[in-house]
This record gives sequence, structure tokens and C-alpha cells, in this order.
Amino acid sequence: MQINSRPYRTIWVHPDDEKIIQVIDQRYLPHRLEIKDITTVEEAAIAIREMWVRGAPLIGATAAFGMYLATLEAPEAGYGQSLRKSADRLLMARPTAINLRWAVNRMMKVIFAPGMDSGNARQVALAEAMKICDEDVAICQSIGQEGLPLIEAISIEKEGQPVNILTHCNAGWLACVDWGTATSPIYQAHEKGIPVHVWVDETRPRNQGASLTAWELGQNNIPYTVIVDNAGGHLMQRGMVDLVITGTDRTAQNGDVANKIGTYLKALAARDNDLPFYVALPSTSIDWAITDGIKEIPVEERSADEVKKISGWGEDGMKEVLLTPAASKAANYAFDVTPARLVTGLITERGICKATKKGILKLFPELQEALTEQNDYAED
Amino acid sequence: MQINSRPYRTIWVHPDDEKIIQVIDQRYLPHRLEIKDITTVEEAAIAIREMWVRGAPLIGATAAFGMYLATLEAPEAGYGQSLRKSADRLLMARPTAINLRWAVNRMMKVIFAPGMDSGNARQVALAEAMKICDEDVAICQSIGQEGLPLIEAISIEKEGQPVNILTHCNAGWLACVDWGTATSPIYQAHEKGIPVHVWVDETRPRNQGASLTAWELGQNNIPYTVIVDNAGGHLMQRGMVDLVITGTDRTAQNGDVANKIGTYLKALAARDNDLPFYVALPSTSIDWAITDGIKEIPVEERSADEVKKISGWGEDGMKEVLLTPAASKAANYAFDVTPARLVTGLITERGICKATKKGILKLFPELQEALTEQNDYAED
Repeated sequence: MQINSRPYRTIWVHPDDEKIIQVIDQRYLPHRLEIKDITTVEEAAIAIREMWVRGAPLIGATAAFGMYLATLEAPEAGYGQSLRKSADRLLMARPTAINLRWAVNRMMKVIFAPGMDSGNARQVALAEAMKICDEDVAICQSIGQEGLPLIEAISIEKEGQPVNILTHCNAGWLACVDWGTATSPIYQAHEKGIPVHVWVDETRPRNQGASLTAWELGQNNIPYTVIVDNAGGHLMQRGMVDLVITGTDRTAQNGDVANKIGTYLKALAARDNDLPFYVALPSTSIDWAITDGIKEIPVEERSADEVKKISGWGEDGMKEVLLTPAASKAANYAFDVTPARLVTGLITERGICKATKKGILKLFPELQEALTEQNDYAED
Repeated sequence: MQINSRPYRTIWVHPDDEKIIQVIDQRYLPHRLEIKDITTVEEAAIAIREMWVRGAPLIGATAAFGMYLATLEAPEAGYGQSLRKSADRLLMARPTAINLRWAVNRMMKVIFAPGMDSGNARQVALAEAMKICDEDVAICQSIGQEGLPLIEAISIEKEGQPVNILTHCNAGWLACVDWGTATSPIYQAHEKGIPVHVWVDETRPRNQGASLTAWELGQNNIPYTVIVDNAGGHLMQRGMVDLVITGTDRTAQNGDVANKIGTYLKALAARDNDLPFYVALPSTSIDWAITDGIKEIPVEERSADEVKKISGWGEDGMKEVLLTPAASKAANYAFDVTPARLVTGLITERGICKATKKGILKLFPELQEALTEQNDYAED
């Protein structure tokens, strides 16, 4: 997507030096665009751990390039051991990120494939990391193409009046390599000349909407308005929202979706006002092992300080301020689970399906067997 | 209620000098307790306009004392004119605050009652302002007594485990003179030894929950936990909430309630999880002229900056930081309207009733005639 009218991905190989990987340091957005070089495994781990990059696909891509950098660092003597140590270092950067594990495992398979050694693995690893990025871009683009007709249909019904789409958190290109998931249909509608307007939920406590989604939409000339998380219900009640699209971190077999805390409240409001509530996702986020999302998906609790304090741009740079009494207790649940009954449909790279086991299997019949495979793999 | 283990109201006459009114300057809460003297009409207007005080009952009480101060300021010559000017000055401090108008009108009636003059009006005005405060305290206390059995019943059912109550914004004693509305049943339960725990919604954009409700509950030793506004649905889904109690700014004849933006979302979540959702209110906030809240209650739009920026305690005092791109648009709807069908009941000073015209009339039969009177008054 665009930054200052130039096309960017969120991660790329330095055009003049393929030993340097570059990323946008998202901690300073929307206030400052800072591009960071990553030249070592340790720097890749820091970028993941300290959240220069975030979002499952981008974390995966960063870890993949991290493993490529590991092949550059690994000495002849102890080559295999060095690479395994690098893999562990990356995995420890965010232990709960499933995509991270997936990317590192995929890179390890390629690096240790039959016939590979320290001489030829580097180019293959670089190619594989780039392939992981390209695959993500293709998936996100497909999600956009599949979701586009939803927006198009509303636009026709509204006779060209802007389609008002509400989104929560950042399921945008900043979370991926390009396009994003929830934002992809929006970007593609905009490119096609369909007038859209996005209501951007602030998304407390980490404010990914107000900072990241607002910034990326603005850079791509999509009209948007930031609102507090409290406002969506009112807007829906007053006819100011046509469609809700969010992302998801994990989709259960029964269609329940785990996403950023607060998503469930927007789904309830959409239902109460007879509005479509769609969830955009790459099929990789479907967790077939989970049959009931509400009962089985564990909800991460994060630091109380993320609720008690907030960061923003002060007079001279990023500043943190305290919002509650200093001794206050605060609870910080990272996600909630929206029951499938509130989800109008899932927008995937293969099309839109009902948020049910049957609906998902119609698009992804291979998932039926995936569970067995997954169990086999666990025994490795 | 208590501050540092000493009983306080939010507004009072200086114990050694009845020409001085004192208030808590709520702009610095929860970070600093600052008590301000109000000695002139102009200072009373500033306190209201700059939100040292907020909440309908407290604004009314402050305006009432402002009119008392006006009697001290008014010169013999031009006495009536001076008082009318003072009244206007106070009314202009927050033109949309209905309680302010009510309090000023009530004071004017007393000050200009037959037989009153500049000689005797001062003591009468002081007495009337104090009476307005005492009446508010009595109403809030009654709301607490009427709401208490709800908490008591849950406590018995839970066999003494803490009753988890979720509240939104600050309908606490800081918004009133004492006790509060939504908080009053909670304080009374606590005084009766019933274990309670309050989930305090942060309440973006002005964060009255995180700053004011958290502070006042803490000062009164009520266990509480601050949460972001996004979290309530998840907590209800996981069985961590027993009861929701909020306040309201305006209740329509049909039981629809206008309250701080985001209340509607919590009412939806309560309904989806079969939890009781109660609204606590003094009957003065029932607007009988409005027959359909959703259709008729106008929702105030406030400054975008309240969404784009946030204030908190920094290294050396209150600091404001920017959360969004500098050029971002933001919408700031102050209230939303919760439809009566989602309200389990209204807790009033005369008891609990259904959120319906019939329910309200059963407790307040005089409202049937009030509309006619109101129209008469408008013609004055």
C-alpha cells in the first residue's frame, strides 16, 4: 500500500543489499514513520518481541527473514546447532504467536531439506522467506476480491452514496505484508472507484485503530473517522453504518471467532440493528482443533498497565500518562470470542462462507483431514 | 462519602465563613485532591463551565449556591437587575444542562418571593441552596435503599461470594452531592457488609470511569477493577458479572434511557447473557415530554479533540497526548439511547419500576399531569 504516495510493503529486502531486511517500526505510528534495518537474528527477535512489527502474518514474515539471517550468521562448524539456536531465539520472542512457530518450522524444513548445506541454503532461505511474503500478499488480495462484492452491492443499493464500514482494531496491511484482511475489500473498493467511508474504532487499550488503522487508511486516501469504542452501537442505531468487517486471530470449527477485545460488542450491535457483520481471515487462522470457540479458546490476560496508562504524542515525542488512581487494579483481557450466530459470514481467500463447520468445509474440504495430520505432526 | 477516611460532600459551605462555598475540583482527580473556594458568581460560573464540577445534580447545586452568592454581590441600587444578570451568567455556563436551569429558576422564585428584599433574601437563598443539596442527598440515599435488595438477593444466591457489578461512566457521588445514583445501592450494600466488587468501565472519551468512579470507590474501600469499555461483553460471557447498574441523563416516557455513549452496548451484552441491566435515576431526570427516546432525544456532538487527545498524569503533572494522526477526523457523540426493551428496571427514589410508561406512572402518577404544567410554565 501507499506511504507518502509511494508503494510499500511492511517488510522487504533492502534494494541495494540483500543482507539487510527493512521494516516499518510501528511503535511510532501514526506520529512518525521510522524504517528500521534488521541485519541479525537478534534484531529480528527484538523487532518481534518489542513489537516494531505485530499482526500474525507480519510476525511470521519477520521470523522467516530472521531464519534467513540465521543462515548468514551460522558458522561452518556447528552450522546445524547455530541454526537451531536461532530458531529457538525467534520462537521465544513471542511464545504464543502461532504464525511465528509455523514460519520458523517452514524455514527449518527448507534449510535442512535433503541436499542443503551452508553453501546453498542462504539463497534458498531468502527465496523461501520472500515466498512466504508473496503468499501472504496473494491471500490478502484474494480476501479483498472476495469481499469486494459485499461493498459493491451496498454501493449500488445506496446509489453511489459512500458505503459506511465500521472496523475494530487493525486488521490492515500493517498487520500483514500488504492489503490486510479486513481492510483489503475496502482498499479494493476504493481502487475500483466505489466511495467508502470507514468508522475506525479506537480499540483500547492499545489503540491500534486510532493509531494504525487511521494512519494506513489516511495514507491510502480512504475517508475515515476515528470513534471511541463506545460509539459503534449509537452509529448503527442511527443508520450511519452499512457493514461491519473485522479480522480474527483464531476461528473455531463451529465458526466462533476470537478477535480483539470489544469485537463481540460490535457484533451484538450489528445484530440488534440488522446489519451485516463479516469477519475477514486467511484460512490459516482457522483452528480446526477447536470445536467450540467460546468454551475452548483461551483468552490471554495482559498487563494491567496497558489499561492504566496510555501513550501518545506529547510536546516532544512519545509520552505515557496515567489514567487511573495509581493504586487501581485493572484487568486486561486481550480478546473476546464472538459466537458464530452473530457472524453473517467469513470472508476468506477462497470466497465467503457461513460461520459454521459445514460452511467452512464447503470452501476448505481439506480441513477435514487436517486434524489427523496435525496430530501426526505433534508426535514428531 | 469518604475521602482519606473523612466524610465529604461534593459541595459545602465553608465551616468558618458562610460567604465561601467549597467544591472538589474534579479536573485533577484521581491524581490530586484539590478543594477550591467559590466566592463570587463569576467563580461559580467558571466552576460549571470549566467542569471543576460535573453531573446534573452537582451542577444544579453549584448554580444554586451561585445564586446565593449573587445575593451577596447585588448592590441596593439595581438589585433585581444584578440578580437577573447573575442568573444569565450561570445559565450560559453550560447552556444544555437542564438541571442548571431548574436550580437557577428555583432560586430566583425564592429570592423574588413576595416580601423578599435585599435585606432578607441572603439567608433565605443560602437556606434554599442548602435545601437543594439536602434534597439531592435524600433522593440518592433513597435510590440506594431501593436498589439494595437487588444486590442483597444476588449475594444470598451466591452464598456470600462477592456480587460483581458493572458500571459505566460516573453516576457516583462525585456527580451528585452525596451517595450518587448508580453507586448508591453499591455503597449501601457495602455499608451493610455485603461483599461487592465493581467492574469500572474506563468510559472513553472523557474517562470518567477510570478517573472518577475508580477514585471514589477506592476512597470508600469498595473493591473495584478498571476495564476498558471493550471488555464488558467478554466478562459477561464468562460469568464474571452478576448485575449492571448505570445512571442516565434523561429517561423518556417509554422507558428509553439516554446515558453516556457506550451504555447501549453494555445493555446488549447483558441481554445476550441473560443478566439484569438496571438504570438508577432521580425522577427529576424523567423527561415526560419525550415519548420515544430513540427517535426524539437529541444526541450532543462534542469536540473531536476529546477523542483525538487524552489527558493523564505525566512525570510532572497533567499532560495531554495525541492518539491519532494529527489530521485525523474524529466523531464524538456524547450519549447513546438504550431502548427500554433492554432495561430490566429503573431504580428510582420511590422504588423499582419497569422501563415502561405504565411502570413509571405506577410510581409517579403525578407525571401524567406534569406535561400540562410544563407547557404552562413554558408560556411564562
